[in-house]
Amino acid sequence: MSAPGARFTLADLPLREALRGQHAYGAPQLDVPVALNTNENPHPPSRALVDDVAESVRQAATVLHRYPDRDAVALRADLARYLTGRTGVELGVENLWAANGSNEILQQLLQAYGGPGRTAIGFVPSYSMHSIITGGTDTTWVEMLREADFTLDVTAAVAEIGRRAPDVVFLTSPNNPTGQSLSLDDIRAVVSVAPGIVIVDEAYGEFSDRPSAIALLDEFGDRLVVTRTMSKAFAFAGGRLGYLVASPALVESLLLVRLPYHLSVVTQAAARAALRHADDTLATVAAIVAERGRVVAELTALGYSVVDSDANFVLFGHLTDAAIAWQRFLDRGVLIRDLRIPGHLRATIGLAAENDAFLRAAAEVAADGLLASDPRTDGVLR
Amino acid sequence: MSAPGARFTLADLPLREALRGQHAYGAPQLDVPVALNTNENPHPPSRALVDDVAESVRQAATVLHRYPDRDAVALRADLARYLTGRTGVELGVENLWAANGSNEILQQLLQAYGGPGRTAIGFVPSYSMHSIITGGTDTTWVEMLREADFTLDVTAAVAEIGRRAPDVVFLTSPNNPTGQSLSLDDIRAVVSVAPGIVIVDEAYGEFSDRPSAIALLDEFGDRLVVTRTMSKAFAFAGGRLGYLVASPALVESLLLVRLPYHLSVVTQAAARAALRHADDTLATVAAIVAERGRVVAELTALGYSVVDSDANFVLFGHLTDAAIAWQRFLDRGVLIRDLRIPGHLRATIGLAAENDAFLRAAAEVAADGLLASDPRTDGVLR
Repeated sequence: MSAPGARFTLADLPLREALRGQHAYGAPQLDVPVALNTNENPHPPSRALVDDVAESVRQAATVLHRYPDRDAVALRADLARYLTGRTGVELGVENLWAANGSNEILQQLLQAYGGPGRTAIGFVPSYSMHSIITGGTDTTWVEMLREADFTLDVTAAVAEIGRRAPDVVFLTSPNNPTGQSLSLDDIRAVVSVAPGIVIVDEAYGEFSDRPSAIALLDEFGDRLVVTRTMSKAFAFAGGRLGYLVASPALVESLLLVRLPYHLSVVTQAAARAALRHADDTLATVAAIVAERGRVVAELTALGYSVVDSDANFVLFGHLTDAAIAWQRFLDRGVLIRDLRIPGHLRATIGLAAENDAFLRAAAEVAADGLLASDPRTDGVLR
Repeated sequence: MSAPGARFTLADLPLREALRGQHAYGAPQLDVPVALNTNENPHPPSRALVDDVAESVRQAATVLHRYPDRDAVALRADLARYLTGRTGVELGVENLWAANGSNEILQQLLQAYGGPGRTAIGFVPSYSMHSIITGGTDTTWVEMLREADFTLDVTAAVAEIGRRAPDVVFLTSPNNPTGQSLSLDDIRAVVSVAPGIVIVDEAYGEFSDRPSAIALLDEFGDRLVVTRTMSKAFAFAGGRLGYLVASPALVESLLLVRLPYHLSVVTQAAARAALRHADDTLATVAAIVAERGRVVAELTALGYSVVDSDANFVLFGHLTDAAIAWQRFLDRGVLIRDLRIPGHLRATIGLAAENDAFLRAAAEVAADGLLASDPRTDGVLR
């Protein structure tokens, strides 16, 4: 027998017009030998971290019948301590906010500072959830193209912000999916002219040597927000913990839009346990950066173009047909990401053996004749 | 030294106009001997449940570096099995959806079926998050008052829905904060005339003997949604797991608005563990219902009016000043809820000793002269 209500289709439902015909976001979740498609940290958690998470959750579970601390104060204090150590900026719990992944952080920001009649700008290609969450909060999305080499022309960005006067500006440093990061001078130039908030998405910040935009917080506390995540460097993608750094007033404003009790006792306990093992976990960052160097060198030697990366992935190009090449990689058991950037694919840096498999596949794809003979076919964005 | 950006105030921020001057939702989180203010299940989780949660999370934590199953299929299958056993309706995984608390469930529903230019109706007093989430998604909120005895006049509701043609109708059964539940005939009458979706919020469903609206799903799969939570009967408020039951097409539509990977591996593992102990946990429901009978009888004997309750709380009235009475309860170490319903307060049913403390305080409040001499002062709603 079929499920109750199975005879109804999407067309029968009183769905919002704006959603009709849309498709759900998401990379394919395929079961493959080598998954290099979602920029996860390939190093599994240490036994000590797993034990600490389990024991912390055991303690927390004794009060599962009670609602969690609605403001997650202890977790936010831990995050403040971590970032203070990392950036040298003396942050307090009142500078931190946390949610179920940086997606929820971004949604809360757009609920408070975007909305109907307001506009958000991004510089594409960039993290596609920026535009999706902007649309999901009925904020108008406008975008400006990056340069042909995927760098951000800051002078042009400043001019565009002056012209558009957006309520929200998205910067990403390092930028996903291209990997390039911004200098503090670049960020300062943008924040200085922005009439609304500027969100600097530093999801991949730990993989870069550039200083964090957190250094600018005291100066621009009325509009600067730095978002981060434990998904990448912290190897905590499954734990779903995103956070942001901002002025106390801006953090306070998010209480107006956050769903009460959004962070479970289990999430708070698990994230605090993971933070206690930050030194161990972040040691994997150096290994990933070293592997990144090897992958970039070998891809280049094979004839691919590779965008400079400050993150745990590389965008590589010079392909005659990215969609066909993506399938060829998959046929060889290597799942990477096709972000519809002509001629380009994105690969996460994995463990050494995974990178070996990826590079073997890349050599075969090149031998298949999928590399362009004329590098100028890479001039894809304009 | 002060936190970075501490010199900025809310007035300096480019906040949405609609949020200016608003206050954050939330019951006070006070440390008191007897907390009967948020309708938690007072029975702590069993040792076996705590162990199972800890071990399940330990297993899940070994893959914390990977993103979770984005669609939480195993958890949804477990929830379908639980509800099939409870209602006799053969539900499949495709009828279920889950999120971080029923608040997130409701927000997703409003994002898909509400929004700018759309309207949601509720019958108040009811769960205040319904109007807050409606506003948070820029949906227009309209409300109709319940009768003076807090029942829902279904004929009047049907007429109002016919006149207003709302895109979303909120029904609550049992209703928070009044405790009354709806018959299937009542629900059918409303759903039959609703032009948009009808959300039947059954957060307290396990405390009632009335059949669930799930029985109507096969007939009204194009618009009926039943929301539930593990926070109350399942004693899992800290775990944050809300869910809904709907037609497969309606569940599918939520993929268009859900944030990807919204449910962590830890949440999925912990909730599945808690569901394995459903029989044990739900045995506490009978104990709570028995205590509810005792509390209602004693409050009535003291001279309070008590609204018929099918839930794990009671709304009681006949107070000359609810705010003063609330403080008197708190002065005696008993935290209950003032929902700004003139003359009334809401108290969660606790453990026997907690209820004893509450009833002692209630006797003292009555002796303090805070009971109205004329019961007609309770005619508060119209």
